[in-house]
Amino acid sequence: MRSFDDLVLSCAVTGAIHTPTMSPSLPITPEEIAEEAIAAADAGANVVHVHVRDPETGEPVNDFDLFDEVATRIRKESDAIVQPTTGGEPSSPPRERIGVVPRLAPEMASCNMGSINFGLYPLLERYDEFEHDWEEPYLEGTKDLIFRNTFGDLETILPVFDAHGTKPELECYDVGHLYNAKHLLDRGLLESPLHLQFVLGIHGGIGADAANLTHMHRVAEDLFGEQYSFSVIGAGRNEFPLGLQAISMGGHARVGLEDNLYLRKGELAESNADLVAKLVDLAAEQTGREPASPNQVREFLDLKGPDGTAF
Amino acid sequence: MRSFDDLVLSCAVTGAIHTPTMSPSLPITPEEIAEEAIAAADAGANVVHVHVRDPETGEPVNDFDLFDEVATRIRKESDAIVQPTTGGEPSSPPRERIGVVPRLAPEMASCNMGSINFGLYPLLERYDEFEHDWEEPYLEGTKDLIFRNTFGDLETILPVFDAHGTKPELECYDVGHLYNAKHLLDRGLLESPLHLQFVLGIHGGIGADAANLTHMHRVAEDLFGEQYSFSVIGAGRNEFPLGLQAISMGGHARVGLEDNLYLRKGELAESNADLVAKLVDLAAEQTGREPASPNQVREFLDLKGPDGTAF
Amino acid sequence: MRSFDDLVLSCAVTGAIHTPTMSPSLPITPEEIAEEAIAAADAGANVVHVHVRDPETGEPVNDFDLFDEVATRIRKESDAIVQPTTGGEPSSPPRERIGVVPRLAPEMASCNMGSINFGLYPLLERYDEFEHDWEEPYLEGTKDLIFRNTFGDLETILPVFDAHGTKPELECYDVGHLYNAKHLLDRGLLESPLHLQFVLGIHGGIGADAANLTHMHRVAEDLFGEQYSFSVIGAGRNEFPLGLQAISMGGHARVGLEDNLYLRKGELAESNADLVAKLVDLAAEQTGREPASPNQVREFLDLKGPDGTAF
Amino acid sequence: MRSFDDLVLSCAVTGAIHTPTMSPSLPITPEEIAEEAIAAADAGANVVHVHVRDPETGEPVNDFDLFDEVATRIRKESDAIVQPTTGGEPSSPPRERIGVVPRLAPEMASCNMGSINFGLYPLLERYDEFEHDWEEPYLEGTKDLIFRNTFGDLETILPVFDAHGTKPELECYDVGHLYNAKHLLDRGLLESPLHLQFVLGIHGGIGADAANLTHMHRVAEDLFGEQYSFSVIGAGRNEFPLGLQAISMGGHARVGLEDNLYLRKGELAESNADLVAKLVDLAAEQTGREPASPNQVREFLDLKGPDGTAF
Repeated sequence: MRSFDDLVLSCAVTGAIHTPTMSPSLPITPEEIAEEAIAAADAGANVVHVHVRDPETGEPVNDFDLFDEVATRIRKESDAIVQPTTGGEPSSPPRERIGVVPRLAPEMASCNMGSINFGLYPLLERYDEFEHDWEEPYLEGTKDLIFRNTFGDLETILPVFDAHGTKPELECYDVGHLYNAKHLLDRGLLESPLHLQFVLGIHGGIGADAANLTHMHRVAEDLFGEQYSFSVIGAGRNEFPLGLQAISMGGHARVGLEDNLYLRKGELAESNADLVAKLVDLAAEQTGREPASPNQVREFLDLKGPDGTAF
Repeated sequence: MRSFDDLVLSCAVTGAIHTPTMSPSLPITPEEIAEEAIAAADAGANVVHVHVRDPETGEPVNDFDLFDEVATRIRKESDAIVQPTTGGEPSSPPRERIGVVPRLAPEMASCNMGSINFGLYPLLERYDEFEHDWEEPYLEGTKDLIFRNTFGDLETILPVFDAHGTKPELECYDVGHLYNAKHLLDRGLLESPLHLQFVLGIHGGIGADAANLTHMHRVAEDLFGEQYSFSVIGAGRNEFPLGLQAISMGGHARVGLEDNLYLRKGELAESNADLVAKLVDLAAEQTGREPASPNQVREFLDLKGPDGTAF
Repeated sequence: MRSFDDLVLSCAVTGAIHTPTMSPSLPITPEEIAEEAIAAADAGANVVHVHVRDPETGEPVNDFDLFDEVATRIRKESDAIVQPTTGGEPSSPPRERIGVVPRLAPEMASCNMGSINFGLYPLLERYDEFEHDWEEPYLEGTKDLIFRNTFGDLETILPVFDAHGTKPELECYDVGHLYNAKHLLDRGLLESPLHLQFVLGIHGGIGADAANLTHMHRVAEDLFGEQYSFSVIGAGRNEFPLGLQAISMGGHARVGLEDNLYLRKGELAESNADLVAKLVDLAAEQTGREPASPNQVREFLDLKGPDGTAF
Repeated sequence: MRSFDDLVLSCAVTGAIHTPTMSPSLPITPEEIAEEAIAAADAGANVVHVHVRDPETGEPVNDFDLFDEVATRIRKESDAIVQPTTGGEPSSPPRERIGVVPRLAPEMASCNMGSINFGLYPLLERYDEFEHDWEEPYLEGTKDLIFRNTFGDLETILPVFDAHGTKPELECYDVGHLYNAKHLLDRGLLESPLHLQFVLGIHGGIGADAANLTHMHRVAEDLFGEQYSFSVIGAGRNEFPLGLQAISMGGHARVGLEDNLYLRKGELAESNADLVAKLVDLAAEQTGREPASPNQVREFLDLKGPDGTAF
């Protein structure tokens, strides 16, 4: 693993997993999303991971104008690295989702390393009513949702990253996705060093526990030796325990309302910034590690810098 | 893990991965498939896992008449447990593939525990020409193939297993699939004890090595305690090393031309029976474990017996 | 693993590893040791692990009068479980160290599960001068120190635990020690359920990292199934990261000046209570788990209660 | 891990674990030990690991004249690398056992990486009577045996290896021993690349199973990156399963009557050569790997060659 004393600390401010009913803090409009991202950066996040939603209903969409508005707003007030998703509206195909890259030419964007079932429907049991009409069928529909990222898709979209100087952050939802990344690296579709995100606890992917995290790390070591870094998402209540374990292992972490709505058991987070601040505090207390500045992350991950973007 | 001194030894005689060009030994017609299964059983296999192919071209199909013919032929000459696939023609949906269960009411059938990319296209590099027109596009087409088994699909097909008294063998291609099985068990769609198959080395799933096998085993232990047994498939050249490791761990193994065409490095197997005989020999030499009789397997896995089938 | 929502939180207040030069907070006299233990209990520790030292020089000793004084003082002001070491002065033989058990008849005492090199000499490099004459040769002498706990020793001392109704906490410094515990269990020298302590990071034992902790847990699962609980010590700067990982895994933790002198990087802890309070806070923030009361621990570990002791 | 296609295949022909009562095939006299070693080399072993025994009684001894006689006899008839133990008579101190290195100046010798309990006494249960008077007390005495290899001992003996150009093979009986090796490497007492032997299944050390082997490998990877190779001993009935697993993992293996007396369940091996031949056969069948020539091993491990020895 590549060594970096400080932390790459991402905040995923809204995502496409949670719906407005689940938390009043979930940002919906471009203004809200940008504000949350800026506040998260002020609290210590050096990367802000953004999705967009229909400003009226909160439904996840792939609207590149909205992405542009969010990115532009963030850039005006923050130096953080703006990282749009390319997996945002998970039922649309990657060849469509990738459009955000040519539009924004971002420094970095997420890139999903394989196809899995992506089941949000167990969330249905926790709510009696929903604020918006789309929420229930959206969640129910994930019973048959495959988050599609085929080898052919990846062959198509990775050159788009390359063409725009956008570094892909490789989202790995299970062990096989690490092998997929290795295959793409061997074929020249990815370039060393890799920056991996281990996503643990999605229903359909690998479970969220300490042993799975140590195993993902082991496989990454075997496949990529000194040519990779990794960050961890522990979905839901595993956000802090697994994020902290990753940090103690020399890795990095992501927090945010995309992945987890609770600041602690039974207490909804009031903002993304609160989640970031909590992680910063716990990381310092437990390991002495602190978030890098955005520019230090740019240097570490060899990003082109904000001037190279289209926003 | 449930303890069983003897081996559950499956032979997967033809599958849907390899094509006729790759080996002259691959059985194609129902007669050939049945003969190979019978010979494999004579060599020590107590379970024969069967797919069917177009008798003219060798292309994998979901033809239930062919399944019936194969099963009937095998039953006439062998006591082995006939286990049809429900994943046979991987590009067709599970709700279609499941049809073999109502038709045959088999004692056991395979059941795939999740969706993954299923990339056979790297095999293209090894052959200059193909015997049949369908082979090259079939393999090339897997660049975009997702082997589809959504949560909704599983909700639909598991009651079909149940209705026909057919024990599902749970094919797990990555760690997340074990969590899917746990979810289905908790919801009452599966019933303890489970019989799992760890499939290692499919391009799109978990890699084939010793550490991945020990990790799959660990996760199964955590999730299922004493209420499961497992078998292992190591794809390609990993068939014997991983099969033997599984056996030394107290698990079981599957061999056969579906998974691996070579008897040893550079030497194509002339028959499924040769692969079975080799495994039997290596298992005895290394661990002292020997294949159970089909009836012992029936008792161990609580199968209904051949008289309960529709063939 | 046995399930227990709340935490068994031990505090090891002085030990035999650190010397007075290393921290002014290290308690030396029986009064100091008892005061630190009482304050640690007030901060949330339900078990206090005690060693004794020469009140003049601070050198670790096996003086049972001192143990008695410490235990008696603690009991007067606290309900915490007083757990004396039986490994206190590591260069003396176990048959001598065990004397504390007949003398105090404590509810619980530590019991070391095997022999290892126990090298404290790397600490020498961190200090230019030592307060007491004994410190430098004591540390230097550990180059040839084997912490002796042979199978014969364990055969001799375990019946002493049994005779006095004292529950042994099984200190495991490497994977093999878990197998030793299994051997002793199989021979009837230990009784289920076991309470294990994984000690990571002693120079001579297993290293202190996340993967070693997940492996120790795995082996314990394999050997003891549902008949054990575990706690973790991460030596030095690993006290908090590994303690928290253990807690997120459903295990328990030990902190204290025996194992770690620093509250955070570069900042010596001013008291054992500060270390306890920090762990309590981090555990609540990350996992929602809180320390049990001493009586809840007594019930969980089936201890005889303080009235059964000889102090 | 350093890559080497062919196998380093050691045979440990007599050791100090088994006693004459346990197998008539155990070589005792220098002639017998040398003959067994030569035959093992002819069967495929490229390294022969030797201990010596009292020619009358078979009791393990540290008699350097006997070592010299054995080594000289082997060298006359075989090109295999003669590797004497430095742990031979485990109750004598390392500073005494090391004497074989100055006496023979061998190309390679074993070197034990830490202290553990070394309990042979469970073997007592398997035999009603013993051929020689020393056997029963010898086995019984291991209840209190610590196989002593302190940090101070290693500081003393490693320079002796160095002074005679003898490569140490590092015997690691538990995870902590790998950390000890790292410590010695960091201090310049060992030199990269290391050649490690994982010893699994000694009563007192790590257990013999697949997960422990994958964990030892993982820790070695973490500590030594590309600067090490490893071989495996699985004690007793684990000799073949774990040796083969190691070989499938890219590692190497040791067999021989020191570690295991049985060719298969219930059948005593008639010679070391039979054990070697069996491993050669199984390795070829399962993995296609074959033993290197002794000179290839010399090149891989950078040994000085037989002309540099004193025999």
